Amino acid sequence: METPALILDIDRLRINAKRMLDHCAARGITLRPHVKTPKSVDVAKLATGGRMSTITVSTLAEAEHFAQAGFTDILYAVGIAPNKFNRAKRIGPTLTVVVDSVEMATAVAQSDLSNPVLIEIDCGEHRGGLPTNDPELEHIAQKLGAQFAGIMSHAGQSYETDELAVVKEIAAREVKAARLAANRLTQIGLTVGTVSIGSTPTVLHGDDLDGITELRAGIYLFHDLSQAARNICRFDDIALTVLASVIGHNRAAGVLTLDAGALAMSKDIGAQKHLPNAGYGWLCDVETVKPLGLSIDTVHQEHGTVKVRDPAVYDQLPIGSMVRVMPVHACLTAAGGYGRYYLTDGHIWPRIDGWD
Amino acid sequence: METPALILDIDRLRINAKRMLDHCAARGITLRPHVKTPKSVDVAKLATGGRMSTITVSTLAEAEHFAQAGFTDILYAVGIAPNKFNRAKRIGPTLTVVVDSVEMATAVAQSDLSNPVLIEIDCGEHRGGLPTNDPELEHIAQKLGAQFAGIMSHAGQSYETDELAVVKEIAAREVKAARLAANRLTQIGLTVGTVSIGSTPTVLHGDDLDGITELRAGIYLFHDLSQAARNICRFDDIALTVLASVIGHNRAAGVLTLDAGALAMSKDIGAQKHLPNAGYGWLCDVETVKPLGLSIDTVHQEHGTVKVRDPAVYDQLPIGSMVRVMPVHACLTAAGGYGRYYLTDGHIWPRIDGWD
Repeated sequence: METPALILDIDRLRINAKRMLDHCAARGITLRPHVKTPKSVDVAKLATGGRMSTITVSTLAEAEHFAQAGFTDILYAVGIAPNKFNRAKRIGPTLTVVVDSVEMATAVAQSDLSNPVLIEIDCGEHRGGLPTNDPELEHIAQKLGAQFAGIMSHAGQSYETDELAVVKEIAAREVKAARLAANRLTQIGLTVGTVSIGSTPTVLHGDDLDGITELRAGIYLFHDLSQAARNICRFDDIALTVLASVIGHNRAAGVLTLDAGALAMSKDIGAQKHLPNAGYGWLCDVETVKPLGLSIDTVHQEHGTVKVRDPAVYDQLPIGSMVRVMPVHACLTAAGGYGRYYLTDGHIWPRIDGWD
Repeated sequence: METPALILDIDRLRINAKRMLDHCAARGITLRPHVKTPKSVDVAKLATGGRMSTITVSTLAEAEHFAQAGFTDILYAVGIAPNKFNRAKRIGPTLTVVVDSVEMATAVAQSDLSNPVLIEIDCGEHRGGLPTNDPELEHIAQKLGAQFAGIMSHAGQSYETDELAVVKEIAAREVKAARLAANRLTQIGLTVGTVSIGSTPTVLHGDDLDGITELRAGIYLFHDLSQAARNICRFDDIALTVLASVIGHNRAAGVLTLDAGALAMSKDIGAQKHLPNAGYGWLCDVETVKPLGLSIDTVHQEHGTVKVRDPAVYDQLPIGSMVRVMPVHACLTAAGGYGRYYLTDGHIWPRIDGWD
C-alpha cells in the first residue's frame, strides 16, 4: 500500500456508529448523521443502521452522490445560494435545503425549486441562522409556503470548550432556540415537521430534547484529537488514521520527516488549545495504534516534520518504516484528496471530495 | 457557475509564467517549474514555455498525470519511500527521484528501479536533506552508481521572512550548499549532471548562480497573500481567486457568511505574520478584483465567516451576491477539491488532486 493512505478501523467505526444510533434510539429521536465527515456511502450505511434515509451533507456534490446511492432524505445544511438552484432542482425533493433570510426565502419561492426548506436559527454559534428573537421568522416561513418544512440549528460553539458542564449549557441553549422558533411558527398555524439540532458534543450531552425531532452529528463516526482533547471521546475511539512513511532522518536538525504534510493531515491546529502537543497529528505504532509520544510539528504541502528529542526514535522508526497518524480534525484530514479508505478488515471503501 | 469555484486570471498567469521564464533565460539556467501549485497540464505548458520537459512534482499521482500528458523530465522532489518503488518504476526513467540517506540509497540500488536519483542537501530549512558537511554524501552517491544524477536543495526557510536582504542571504546559502556538495562529488570523479535549487523567493532574488544547472519554483505562477505579504509579489500579481457566494447576513452577530470555508480556502494562516488582516483570504470585488477591506476571519468546513464593522457592507454584498477571495496559500487552496480552473477568458482547465 502506498503512503499517505487513510486507514479506517472498522471495529471502532462500528462501535462509534452503533453508540450514536443507540443513544438516539433511547431518546426516541431520529439520527441524521452528517456525512461530510466520511463522504462515503459505505460509512453512511453504517451510520444510518442500514436505513439509507436521513443524512446531512455539506455540498451538493455529496447530495448528488448519496441520492444516486439511494439515500432518500438528504439535508444540505449550508445556506443555499441562487447559483445552486439548478443543481438542487435536478437532485429533486429528496433534498432539503436551508435558508435564513427573507431574501433567500423569496428567491427560493420565486424559483422553480420544489425542495423542502428548513429555516436556520442561530443558537449562539454566530455563523448562519436567524437570531431567535428575529421578527422576520414568521415572514420567512410564510414566504416559503408549502415548501416550509421546519427548523434547524447547529451549536458549533460546543467545540470551543473541554468542560462538559459548558457543553450541557450549550446543548440546552440549542434546544431552546430551535423549540422557541418552532413554537412561534406553530402559533401562527404552520406545521413544523422537522426540528433539527446537533453537533457531536451537544447530541451526546444534551438532556432535555422535548420538541426536537432529529439530531445531527458527524465527527463521532471517526473522532479525532480535537474531540479527545475536549473529552468528547477517548483516544481509543479514534477510528481514522493516516498511514505515513518515514522518508528521512535529519539527525543534525533533530527531526524526522514523514510523507504526510498539509494536504494529508490538513493545517487544522484546533486541538492544540486543549492538547498542546497535538501538533498536526500524533504518531502511533503502525500495528497497535499506540501513540508514540511524537507529533507532526511542522507541515509543508507533502512533508510532515517531527521533532526528535531522543535519538532512540531513529532506531525505532527507521527510514522507510511506517506509522499511523491520529488526525487533529478527521473531516479535513479525510478531505485531503484521498480516493478511498483502507479498512482494517481488508476492504476498500471509496470516498468523494470537492464540489463538482 | 456554482460556488465555490477557482478563477484563474489568464493574463496575470501568463505574465507570472513569462517573467520567471525570462528571469531564468537571462541567467542561462533551466527552469523546472513546480507543478504542485497548479496540478494542471495546461498551466504547466505555460510554465515551461511550451517545452513540456523539466517540471517538478510533489506526488507520484502528479508524476503519472504529467508523464501521460507528454512531459519528458519529471522530478519527484519528495524523498522516495519503498512503498512507492513499484509506481516509480511503472512511470519509468522520465521520473527522477530523491534520496538523502544511505538507507534509501541502498534500498533504491537493491531494487529494480532504474530511475535517475538526486541527493537532497539541507541548506538550512531543516526538513529533508543531508547536512552539507555530512560525511556520508560520497558514500550515498557511490551506492547509487549509474543512477546518481545530481544534487538538489530547497530553501523553504525563505518563506519565513519579509526582508529581501534576508532572502538574498538564504539564496546565497542555498547555492553554496548545493555547489559544495556537487564539488565534493566531482572531486571523487563522479559526474554531477544536475545541481537543482529553488523556492520562489530565492530564485527571484539570488545573485550568484555559479555551478547551478536549474531553478525550481512554483507559487510564482499564482502568487497569493503569503507571497505578497513577504514582498515577493504585488497584490495585483495574484492570479488565483476563489469565487464565493454570500449565503447569509447575521447582522445581530456582525458577520456575513460565504460558502468558502476550510476546504475551499484551506486553514493556512501563514500570511498573518506579515499581513495581520489576511485571515483565511481577502474578499475582492467580483469584477474588478479590488480588495474590499474584508477578510474571512473564521472558517468551518464549508462556511467562511466575515466580520462586518460597517453595516453598509450588507448592502454592498447582498445575500446571493458573489465575491472573489484572494487565497492565503494558493497551493493549498487550489488543492481543496476543485476539479477545474475557470479562466477569465472563458476556458476551463482540469486539475488533479490526491495520491491515487
